[in-house]
Amino acid sequence: MATVAVQSFVSAPLQIPNVTQFKIGICQLIVTTEKSANIFNARSLIQTAAEQGATLILLPEMWNCPYSTDLFAKFAEEFSDIDSAPSLLMLSEVASSLGVTIIGGSIPEKDAGQLYNSCPVFGPNGELKAKHRKIHLFDMGKPLPGEVQFKESVNISAGEKPTVVDTDFGRIGIGICHDIRFPELAMSYSARGAHLICYPGAFNMSTGATLWELEQRTRAVDNQLYVASCSLSRDSASSYMIWGHSTVVGPMGKIIATTGHEEAALIAEIDYAAIQWTRESLPLESQKRNDIYQFVDLLRESLNS
Amino acid sequence: MATVAVQSFVSAPLQIPNVTQFKIGICQLIVTTEKSANIFNARSLIQTAAEQGATLILLPEMWNCPYSTDLFAKFAEEFSDIDSAPSLLMLSEVASSLGVTIIGGSIPEKDAGQLYNSCPVFGPNGELKAKHRKIHLFDMGKPLPGEVQFKESVNISAGEKPTVVDTDFGRIGIGICHDIRFPELAMSYSARGAHLICYPGAFNMSTGATLWELEQRTRAVDNQLYVASCSLSRDSASSYMIWGHSTVVGPMGKIIATTGHEEAALIAEIDYAAIQWTRESLPLESQKRNDIYQFVDLLRESLNS
Repeated sequence: MATVAVQSFVSAPLQIPNVTQFKIGICQLIVTTEKSANIFNARSLIQTAAEQGATLILLPEMWNCPYSTDLFAKFAEEFSDIDSAPSLLMLSEVASSLGVTIIGGSIPEKDAGQLYNSCPVFGPNGELKAKHRKIHLFDMGKPLPGEVQFKESVNISAGEKPTVVDTDFGRIGIGICHDIRFPELAMSYSARGAHLICYPGAFNMSTGATLWELEQRTRAVDNQLYVASCSLSRDSASSYMIWGHSTVVGPMGKIIATTGHEEAALIAEIDYAAIQWTRESLPLESQKRNDIYQFVDLLRESLNS
Repeated sequence: MATVAVQSFVSAPLQIPNVTQFKIGICQLIVTTEKSANIFNARSLIQTAAEQGATLILLPEMWNCPYSTDLFAKFAEEFSDIDSAPSLLMLSEVASSLGVTIIGGSIPEKDAGQLYNSCPVFGPNGELKAKHRKIHLFDMGKPLPGEVQFKESVNISAGEKPTVVDTDFGRIGIGICHDIRFPELAMSYSARGAHLICYPGAFNMSTGATLWELEQRTRAVDNQLYVASCSLSRDSASSYMIWGHSTVVGPMGKIIATTGHEEAALIAEIDYAAIQWTRESLPLESQKRNDIYQFVDLLRESLNS
């Protein structure tokens, strides 16, 4: 038991973004062993989503690379050199040509000899606005009967900080797959003034069926904000069977849009006014008992970050 | 922004209770405007549950009193004088005569001129082992269309601390109704080594349908422990319509038993071994990133409390 000094914050007030009503496009993609085919496929589904009116677009976890620890290094790209990174270059170009904001799921990132599971965010001018490295790696302990062992940390390093990014479509917090299992990350995004948390993911069949929708709805409800998830689509031939079911949830926990396990460009309408009336009807934030417990976001630097 | 010194704890290890496999009985009761009828009815359903093998019994929120702020004072009892408190006296007697442990839902408590929404816990010798006062009162803000305004704090005072109680059937954390909306309380119980969190409740029709099961499953899954809830049953004539649906959830989020909205003695089998294999298969606790965020339980005094 150590005594540490921490800073006690109040939540950042919600800012009003440039756009408060818009369509989000969720690209539930299949992934193959050919990187160029994955890039082509992702570009095509992003275009489909944009044609249907989506101005904010979300991709799944590891969309350019089979979800297999032994392939991450081969498919990895350097975020510091986009011109030599074909997956990132495509996202930058398509964001710019379509004028959309892209929360780019994740791809393996290589940096200084390390690999990360990283989400790039591109603005409508094609600029890389932010990057989230998966904080909580999916390391299973002792598998239950029927479960396939998986230890992501064998060759992926964990990210060191939460990521919020200010876009035309609000302040967006990012979590990748297993990050969703930790209420603390969503709490830090809520306290930092996020309107929406985006979770690219690749839950498997067992945890997908029991937990995927549950966790999304809970993070939305407990923090009274929007949650959007984007899964890979299911490849029945793969040893790691994907659950699918990308979903958008409103701040009262209502499922606004969801899909099955096939490839799909899911479109959902978001209206941030719902955050305001949800919080006015039940002001959970002000009902928290900071005299009894406190959530401490050790890396938050100011009221506006 | 203030800097405060807090104590950083590790979670208390799970102790092995006297009994690790047992039946819990959930008494989903109707409540009337006659206190003596409510007491008779509760006693009868406790007996029914015990006859079906339940050794730990859970009652709903405000089972001796209509859920109406103007009636709480009239139905309130003093916990310091059980012989003059007919609801508490019945619980003590029936716990002792049946040899069961009772998590006694809640009744209005009066103490030093204040009213509380309080849960008494009786051991199998009839002793009052603990008391939980509802920490988070249900104060609605601006009601949504169709919602009935409710402000519990008009005449109820809030409890000042979390409550864990060691019983033959494990370490049990208690939350009353709106307490379930706050992940922090469940996190404090998990960190204090709880096997089971009991939530007596009385969710209404709108939040019941969307949130009651969701919150129970999430608290179980995020903390990898058992959750049991007990609601009042629905009285179609009441202005405050109760959702019902008392439920028991396992540490993987599976619903072990649930019921509808009528009166029922719901029996569920609990096996604490499930906590161990759930945590072994996915060690969420050790995966938390205490370098990024910390949950601080300000009132926890030692590793074993």
